[in-house]
Amino acid sequence: MTDAPFLALDIGGTKTALAVADGTSARAQRTTFATERTGPDTLARLLHEARRLLTDRRPEAVGVSFGGHVVGRNVRSLHVPGWEDTDLFARLEREFQAPVRGANDAVAGAIGEHTIRARAGESWPVLVYVTVSTGIGGAILLDGVPYHGSHGLSGEIGHMVVSDTGLCSCGRTGHLEANASGLAIARRTAAEWLGAVEPQCDITARDVAEAARQGDPVAGRVLFDAGRLVGDALASTAALIDPDLIVVGGGVSLAGPAFWTPLIEAVAEKAMSRVRIDHATHGADSALWGAFDLARQAAEESLVA
Amino acid sequence: MTDAPFLALDIGGTKTALAVADGTSARAQRTTFATERTGPDTLARLLHEARRLLTDRRPEAVGVSFGGHVVGRNVRSLHVPGWEDTDLFARLEREFQAPVRGANDAVAGAIGEHTIRARAGESWPVLVYVTVSTGIGGAILLDGVPYHGSHGLSGEIGHMVVSDTGLCSCGRTGHLEANASGLAIARRTAAEWLGAVEPQCDITARDVAEAARQGDPVAGRVLFDAGRLVGDALASTAALIDPDLIVVGGGVSLAGPAFWTPLIEAVAEKAMSRVRIDHATHGADSALWGAFDLARQAAEESLVA
Repeated sequence: MTDAPFLALDIGGTKTALAVADGTSARAQRTTFATERTGPDTLARLLHEARRLLTDRRPEAVGVSFGGHVVGRNVRSLHVPGWEDTDLFARLEREFQAPVRGANDAVAGAIGEHTIRARAGESWPVLVYVTVSTGIGGAILLDGVPYHGSHGLSGEIGHMVVSDTGLCSCGRTGHLEANASGLAIARRTAAEWLGAVEPQCDITARDVAEAARQGDPVAGRVLFDAGRLVGDALASTAALIDPDLIVVGGGVSLAGPAFWTPLIEAVAEKAMSRVRIDHATHGADSALWGAFDLARQAAEESLVA
Repeated sequence: MTDAPFLALDIGGTKTALAVADGTSARAQRTTFATERTGPDTLARLLHEARRLLTDRRPEAVGVSFGGHVVGRNVRSLHVPGWEDTDLFARLEREFQAPVRGANDAVAGAIGEHTIRARAGESWPVLVYVTVSTGIGGAILLDGVPYHGSHGLSGEIGHMVVSDTGLCSCGRTGHLEANASGLAIARRTAAEWLGAVEPQCDITARDVAEAARQGDPVAGRVLFDAGRLVGDALASTAALIDPDLIVVGGGVSLAGPAFWTPLIEAVAEKAMSRVRIDHATHGADSALWGAFDLARQAAEESLVA
């Protein structure tokens, strides 16, 4: 290892975060921007911000959390078009002359949460991480290693069936993501506030959470329903894979008791056996911290190679 | 190995099956009886029937599929009381002076289905087996090995949340087993046929399937609803663990198109990615054939020890 810093990137559907830190310090310089409308535009902005944070330093390695599908070196987002044409990982390697390792945001979040808990001396052989954000993703770690399933499509908690209604980003009906994601929460609240089915407005799940805190009954009910449905999916997850711990992160997980209380109550009522449910230690930053772990893995592999 | 036969036992909530076969032949002598009202009574009948099938031979090993929880050497059924006091495995070892290996019926069914497919040259790294019978169970095999989860409670597909209603055998509400098991199918149909909420009668899921074949609209609708709900749970299972193959066995899986067609349609409509769904190769006998595999494993371990 040199004392060059690590670069961590968390590319989301709504916001993109960057952080630069050396291998030993927990202190990082970081910045965030609203994700642009296309993949290429977001990448251009990302490179600009990364160069600014790095000043004239070359990173030791780059870790990437990507909010979408990551299969091998290919990335694709259901929310932001054009990423599939950017050759993201190769571009980052060329740009920074450093090894790059990426994973989808749920896997990165799971790794970030597992690492911080392992450092605290905790052992979680079967850890599930769920991110409730613009979309809803999830990942399963078995002894700290991502479980990928047959086609790299495991952990898709957002596409579990929880309802008869709600058109999902994947084109199916009744999925958790269509009924309880940040986007669904914003759209449902906006539809009731504004009386429009497909409101063209800038209301976000954060606005809904703030309104619920102020006592808005519509916002409170939408968050309650979303929390219950996430709880249903987590009870089903517990029945199927019997995890030690389910960690819930992503922006919506920070919406407060209006969302969290019905979630916990639904799990308590509906899970056959006891399962521990925790807030993400890193709040909405689990994936960014997981990206540092991915960067460390990339650096270690490049030393071995 | 000697040429002593293997004894396979499939102890279910409704019926109990026994088979005796040598290690190489697929031919077996078998018998079935209606499970008695308690564990001790069923065990006494089981020992009697086994001695009859074995004539004066001592088995090489005994494999047991048990319809209930199997944790270590302890067994417990939610449907048949008293099993927890029988010391089942130790009793079988003493009785037959042979090694005994047991698993719950879903794990045994999964092993039986995996083995027959492996012999046919098929490879299924992630195989899920679901048994829709008196209750609904399931098991996950990763590279042919049962995945147990943190507390030995994985694969409990019957306790996934699919509804807001239906009181489950485990005391929770809304689980698949409470809405789509053989018992639920029989009770719902009987309630409509007889107009009673908790009908005291002998209608079984098999009677419902036969009535649906004859065109009975109540039976057809109950089986349709059950098939849809099982399909919903399998779509959620596919999203979470991305299996190569889901095998559906148990008596209700043989109820015909009234049950199977809505199941397949629900998966096709609601699973985000493609997953193959198969009937069990062994029909309702997967667990009995898996019990032979367990007996073979017990014999091999006892040779090593």
